[in-house]
Amino acid sequence: MSLLSTTGHYTAGSAKGMQDKTCTTDGYGVMSAPGGRPVPGGSASEVEEAVMSDSNELESISPYGKARSTVKGEPLSKEEIEKYNDFFKASLYLSLGMIYLRQNPLLKEPLKKEHLKARLLGHFGSAPGQIFTYMHFNRLISKYDLDAIFISGPGHGAPAVLSQAYLEGTYSEVYPENSEDEEGMRHFFKQFSFPGGIGSHATPETPGSIHEGGELGYSVSHAFGAVFDHPNLIALTMVGDGEAETGPLAASWHSTKFLNPITDGAVLPVLHLNGYKINNPTLLARIPHKELEYLFRGYGYEPYFVEGDDVETMHQAMAATLEQCVVEIRKVQKKARESGKALPRPLWPMIILRSPKGWTGPRKIDDKYLEGYWRAHQVPITDVHENPEHLKLLEKWMRSYEPERLFADGKIGPDLKALCPTGQRRMSANPVANGGLLRKPLKMPDFRKYAIEVKTPGVTMDASMTNMSTFLRDIIAMNPTSFRLFGPDETESNKLAKVYQAGKKVWMGEYFEEDENGGNLAPEGRVMEILSEHTCEGWLEGYILSGRHGLLNSYEPFIHVIDSMVNQHCKWLEKCLEVEWRNKVASLNILLTAVVWRQDHNGFTHQDPGFLDVVANKSPEVVRIYLPPDGNCLLSCMDHCLRSSNYVNVVVADKQEHLQYLSMEEAEIHCTKGIGIWPQFSTDRGEEPDLIMASCGDIPTHESLAAIDLLLQHFPELKIRCVNCVDLFKLISHVDHPHGLTDPEWVSLFTDNTPIIFNFHSYPWLVHRLTYKRPGNANMHVRGYKEKGNIDTPLELAIRNQTDRFSLAIDAIDRIKGLANRGAAARESLRNAQIKARNEAFEMGIDPPFLKNWTWPHNGLWKSGVPKLI
Amino acid sequence: MSLLSTTGHYTAGSAKGMQDKTCTTDGYGVMSAPGGRPVPGGSASEVEEAVMSDSNELESISPYGKARSTVKGEPLSKEEIEKYNDFFKASLYLSLGMIYLRQNPLLKEPLKKEHLKARLLGHFGSAPGQIFTYMHFNRLISKYDLDAIFISGPGHGAPAVLSQAYLEGTYSEVYPENSEDEEGMRHFFKQFSFPGGIGSHATPETPGSIHEGGELGYSVSHAFGAVFDHPNLIALTMVGDGEAETGPLAASWHSTKFLNPITDGAVLPVLHLNGYKINNPTLLARIPHKELEYLFRGYGYEPYFVEGDDVETMHQAMAATLEQCVVEIRKVQKKARESGKALPRPLWPMIILRSPKGWTGPRKIDDKYLEGYWRAHQVPITDVHENPEHLKLLEKWMRSYEPERLFADGKIGPDLKALCPTGQRRMSANPVANGGLLRKPLKMPDFRKYAIEVKTPGVTMDASMTNMSTFLRDIIAMNPTSFRLFGPDETESNKLAKVYQAGKKVWMGEYFEEDENGGNLAPEGRVMEILSEHTCEGWLEGYILSGRHGLLNSYEPFIHVIDSMVNQHCKWLEKCLEVEWRNKVASLNILLTAVVWRQDHNGFTHQDPGFLDVVANKSPEVVRIYLPPDGNCLLSCMDHCLRSSNYVNVVVADKQEHLQYLSMEEAEIHCTKGIGIWPQFSTDRGEEPDLIMASCGDIPTHESLAAIDLLLQHFPELKIRCVNCVDLFKLISHVDHPHGLTDPEWVSLFTDNTPIIFNFHSYPWLVHRLTYKRPGNANMHVRGYKEKGNIDTPLELAIRNQTDRFSLAIDAIDRIKGLANRGAAARESLRNAQIKARNEAFEMGIDPPFLKNWTWPHNGLWKSGVPKLI
Repeated sequence: MSLLSTTGHYTAGSAKGMQDKTCTTDGYGVMSAPGGRPVPGGSASEVEEAVMSDSNELESISPYGKARSTVKGEPLSKEEIEKYNDFFKASLYLSLGMIYLRQNPLLKEPLKKEHLKARLLGHFGSAPGQIFTYMHFNRLISKYDLDAIFISGPGHGAPAVLSQAYLEGTYSEVYPENSEDEEGMRHFFKQFSFPGGIGSHATPETPGSIHEGGELGYSVSHAFGAVFDHPNLIALTMVGDGEAETGPLAASWHSTKFLNPITDGAVLPVLHLNGYKINNPTLLARIPHKELEYLFRGYGYEPYFVEGDDVETMHQAMAATLEQCVVEIRKVQKKARESGKALPRPLWPMIILRSPKGWTGPRKIDDKYLEGYWRAHQVPITDVHENPEHLKLLEKWMRSYEPERLFADGKIGPDLKALCPTGQRRMSANPVANGGLLRKPLKMPDFRKYAIEVKTPGVTMDASMTNMSTFLRDIIAMNPTSFRLFGPDETESNKLAKVYQAGKKVWMGEYFEEDENGGNLAPEGRVMEILSEHTCEGWLEGYILSGRHGLLNSYEPFIHVIDSMVNQHCKWLEKCLEVEWRNKVASLNILLTAVVWRQDHNGFTHQDPGFLDVVANKSPEVVRIYLPPDGNCLLSCMDHCLRSSNYVNVVVADKQEHLQYLSMEEAEIHCTKGIGIWPQFSTDRGEEPDLIMASCGDIPTHESLAAIDLLLQHFPELKIRCVNCVDLFKLISHVDHPHGLTDPEWVSLFTDNTPIIFNFHSYPWLVHRLTYKRPGNANMHVRGYKEKGNIDTPLELAIRNQTDRFSLAIDAIDRIKGLANRGAAARESLRNAQIKARNEAFEMGIDPPFLKNWTWPHNGLWKSGVPKLI
Repeated sequence: MSLLSTTGHYTAGSAKGMQDKTCTTDGYGVMSAPGGRPVPGGSASEVEEAVMSDSNELESISPYGKARSTVKGEPLSKEEIEKYNDFFKASLYLSLGMIYLRQNPLLKEPLKKEHLKARLLGHFGSAPGQIFTYMHFNRLISKYDLDAIFISGPGHGAPAVLSQAYLEGTYSEVYPENSEDEEGMRHFFKQFSFPGGIGSHATPETPGSIHEGGELGYSVSHAFGAVFDHPNLIALTMVGDGEAETGPLAASWHSTKFLNPITDGAVLPVLHLNGYKINNPTLLARIPHKELEYLFRGYGYEPYFVEGDDVETMHQAMAATLEQCVVEIRKVQKKARESGKALPRPLWPMIILRSPKGWTGPRKIDDKYLEGYWRAHQVPITDVHENPEHLKLLEKWMRSYEPERLFADGKIGPDLKALCPTGQRRMSANPVANGGLLRKPLKMPDFRKYAIEVKTPGVTMDASMTNMSTFLRDIIAMNPTSFRLFGPDETESNKLAKVYQAGKKVWMGEYFEEDENGGNLAPEGRVMEILSEHTCEGWLEGYILSGRHGLLNSYEPFIHVIDSMVNQHCKWLEKCLEVEWRNKVASLNILLTAVVWRQDHNGFTHQDPGFLDVVANKSPEVVRIYLPPDGNCLLSCMDHCLRSSNYVNVVVADKQEHLQYLSMEEAEIHCTKGIGIWPQFSTDRGEEPDLIMASCGDIPTHESLAAIDLLLQHFPELKIRCVNCVDLFKLISHVDHPHGLTDPEWVSLFTDNTPIIFNFHSYPWLVHRLTYKRPGNANMHVRGYKEKGNIDTPLELAIRNQTDRFSLAIDAIDRIKGLANRGAAARESLRNAQIKARNEAFEMGIDPPFLKNWTWPHNGLWKSGVPKLI
């Protein structure tokens, strides 16, 4: 196998430049190389006409050598280049300082072991390329008065963004102890990746950040989410080439097919071919140049390459290229806005920056590659505590960035400061990245207007979800630039199609004649559908973190696809609660339907209600779970969730027609309490009950009520108490969750000595895990979903094999005291009915009518009218 | 906004052909159009030299019109075309029959409502395109004696694969009640998407399937997994254009960078531009032709287009294109194998098939588009029960497929049968797709050989993971074609780098000079690393489902990324247990490290041990969870998992240096029991204990033992029983999991009246959910991870704020009876020590030595030698 091989298909892949570099440079001398040709800065129109390189120049896939770039032009003067050199050095110095220093922040003394952190942590690898991009974009922010944010995709990219926030002054403004002087710098260094300090990502503590980048894959979808409905915003988005290997990132490039150039802003992605991950080359840095170009043209972008390690020429190339991109973005937007035509979809510019990992660091240490290799990923020299030679090397490297000159007054001088934009134009201080500042309450119609009329409980049939969709529709209409509905191709299937009356589906792809009739597509739509839960969720996060509101609707079984994204958002929110300057953002609302109990026909793969378990593990400060039993409760819950802030709200509701139980007035009372006794379905009349039939979830509630009916048919005298739970966290102790019941409250509902048959929407163990501490918890018998491939119950009940009315009633009979022989007889009769129903369904393919058409028959029990919730 | 718009960039997107089609055809007349030009079948060499189209012809993105294709050629004779027409019709007839019919399977009588299924379920949309591809590939299987499997990516694609398995005879062979006659066909139809029947995906019941396709996104990674180390296998892989929008699928196209043309087989992807998802156009069907071509060239493929709806010309185009691809694949392989050079990476062929959704169905019904629109996605005509006209239309449509002629004897005639390969060459009968048939036990060295010597318990320090990696290394060496290690760029970081001595990392990208020193890359490697958990897991699934063995290693916090994939694999395994002809496959082994308790420096985003909750919800028949406390236990667990079959095994182990507790002999005893008393760390000496200190997980065990030490320092007389759990499912009742303890066994360990301080690796509620039914469960106090952004304990203990030794000891003191004032004093002293340790860590950045260097100091307690496990 030959090293330095190239594919046979393209004339690509020579690593010649790299070899030259290896021979002639020791790495940290790079910065003091003689300057390039000074040229005057280009104006916008000059740049627009910039000469493009011919593609032959872009054949090498080595990160080394003089700048090679698609866009030609030398917009920077010699003086400017010198300033950018200095700013780059200052930033790199801070990045190393964070990783290494606990004392002696400006190296005023010779570097000693005592100055180092005892445990070295942090990542240097991606910092140079990110800083380089950030600082050159600042020039354009100032020149064109751009409204921009920076999204740092590469993992552990904090040194890059922290150094910029510190140099821009924002960091000291929000954290005065990290002031722009020697002591402030010392504190700034020490706190980084330190116990009691801050993490190594763009965590919520980082001003200007809406994207932590702890888990990789979401930078592009977050960026697009942030620019939707922010027509002047540009999200400069660094995408790591490690991150770019992930599925979510690979899918999210297609987001341009959903970006309207009239009403939305722009994302400027910079794919950073940094070359390596922790211990491996990256895929995209090791394919021929031509494939890379094809790939991004295929994704619908106009890719501009900036490649090399020669700092002087790279300054010019990056400055010219970023400017070309900004001018192109503005041109696309101007054209669309002036013509009023969003279509045809523009090809948006993007940049491919190829620079060595750990750029400007030592190329080799002890004959092992560092810069331009995976060893530069994390702490670049690890043994400085033990190896005095390496400590000296580190010091030499750090001094090559000239701290004594650049931070002569403990901070950078005014000439360098002048390279930064000011005020809210600083990417670290843009209020978009503290979305709570911009957030306005959603305009909402009175949800009571959409009430389903329920005269007699348990008799009216109605489609809760379809009904609720009119509420959603009107919210979309009332908030035409600050609310969007997201979903993976399921809005119609989830019975929410009425929303299209207020806002169609965003579509910037080609249109066909068929679309005219029922396509519901428009460039200016308000509903976002792509068959990628990752992209939908990422967009929604970006949208709310930048100050707006939204809702994700999805099939319940496949919401596990984004378990990890939701996890990470919960962590972000939890951490934000500790960051004083962060204002609260709208909640991330997730509406789950196509629930497990309706997935008999789609099969076992479509049956998984376990997302609730994942959510329930997150901090009680930020998660809420609602399972409304009927249509009016669904309205009430949705109203509550859409008004709330800083939560992840999960609402689970069936999308099919359903029995309705509560009037709107009752629903509001019930949802406000979150859990309560339903006297209209109870026969204990305030006395000590023989049995408690509890339920949580709409279909489980239905079956639980049908089971009460079966029991009353056999034992009319039974004192049954019906309890319904909407707000799942009512079950847990108030000590563990702010919504939790106290034990006395618990006992007032469940007693501490009565059998409880609890019918639950999800896996039964979730209820046990929430209630194991409760008085009388041994009386709790929970039915819920259990994994079972073999379906042997009726169709409508198919996978409800653990939660159907017969099983519930039989469970109750087994637990109620004193039924004796009557119990055994009833048990057998119920079991026979269950078997008969199953056989009928297996023959006919549908449930027998007596199951399907069941309604609550006991409203005549109450002489003076059906009891109401109070 | 103009319909039928085209982008300004390419001359693409005219839907002219489509419009013509709309005007002239009513859909189900398509099949009887006059035949095309008969031409002789092409030989391999002819095909190789086939004339390629110029690209101008491929500008329209309409699915309608005469075939437009990259490869020209008419390899089929007129007679062959007629036969393929008939085979296509027979297949389509079966597809509709499955969806609609419960009786009258051959339409011998006029179609009546009573013949229909009461509830219509199933998806027709993708069936025609999939069938078309499948049947034309059969020609090549026969012609070239290919070893091939078919992977059906599009959602709900079962009618396509079931119809082929039935026509090939395989279905009747494995399910005799679905015989090839009228009654068998009736049964075959009825069981589909029917209570007690089979699902609408390529479920485990489907012969020839290793990919269910219930959750979308994994077809390509599964396919690559199947062909690794199967040098002659071709996985013909249909990729739905809906599925292609998902992240996992988008990433998995890059799998060719890991495919060795010498030792691996080939995947032939067919991207099916079917045009629509449930209710939306698909992205890839609505971008200009040029972008599509770029995209797949960018992914590293040679794309061949086959587009249109004119069946006659499409037969020729598909036959010629598939043949071109097969010939190219064989050419690439031949060249590499004869030269012995895997590099340069070949460009593999792939096909883009653009055909109308619901192809050959009615184009419009009641002036609404059906064929070529999203309405063809599921049941194509839904109201046949209520609308007699539509029932007639359905009958006319079904009869257009000529069942009376094609199934004259209740089955297809020998001329059509002859189009199918025979025996194991049938894709529905290839043993690769029943991998258990091919699976051979892994060759394994004796794991005891790798034992860590532990003379004194709790004193030896060693790195369990590094040690175990030598065992893994030797397994790789002993199984050079049937075991692979998978991981997202973390093998080195996870301390498993020794495996590279036996097998490097597979790399088919470009090579640089740097790779020579520490790169560990090779085209013929055995370790698979891509920064996509989805792709890694998908490969591993494909690899084991086709009869081999493997292990996925990953960071614990990001394993949630593949929650849903693991869920789906569990469901697959669970279902397989019910399918008699499926042989057991090797377990899917997941090794989790970089555990939550070591993620203080990486921060909150890297802290999530909740994957265990997701796994614990799955069927007890297929999931196993192990938390070995030390290095010898880790070896024993890994040995067990790698030998096992049909499970998802999850092993959680820290990768850092660690105290060692058990000799190999003891470890084997302990792991075999799964849970047990550790007398060497207990002071109850068989008497009734005052306290039980239990632990599960290596770091929690360490802290639990340190807490015992603290307690003994204060109360030397305490009778403490130390219990350790390796096999998590020991905790649950034997009724609920085959590994569970009986209640008497439980009581023998935990008693029913002693306080238990249980230190757990993951969220504490998982233990509560497993043990809520146990005698004395009220005595159980569990510490584990809780979400908390604010870290206020020492570094090594940083996020262990709920599980550190001080907290555990204090908990114990609060629960042991009769300590009175002595308890209060000890409590205060422990609390002070805890605060002091924290302050020291906050200042120095590392834990104080007394914490870090702690070892078990009580081995002198036992006069006659430390007690051993028995």
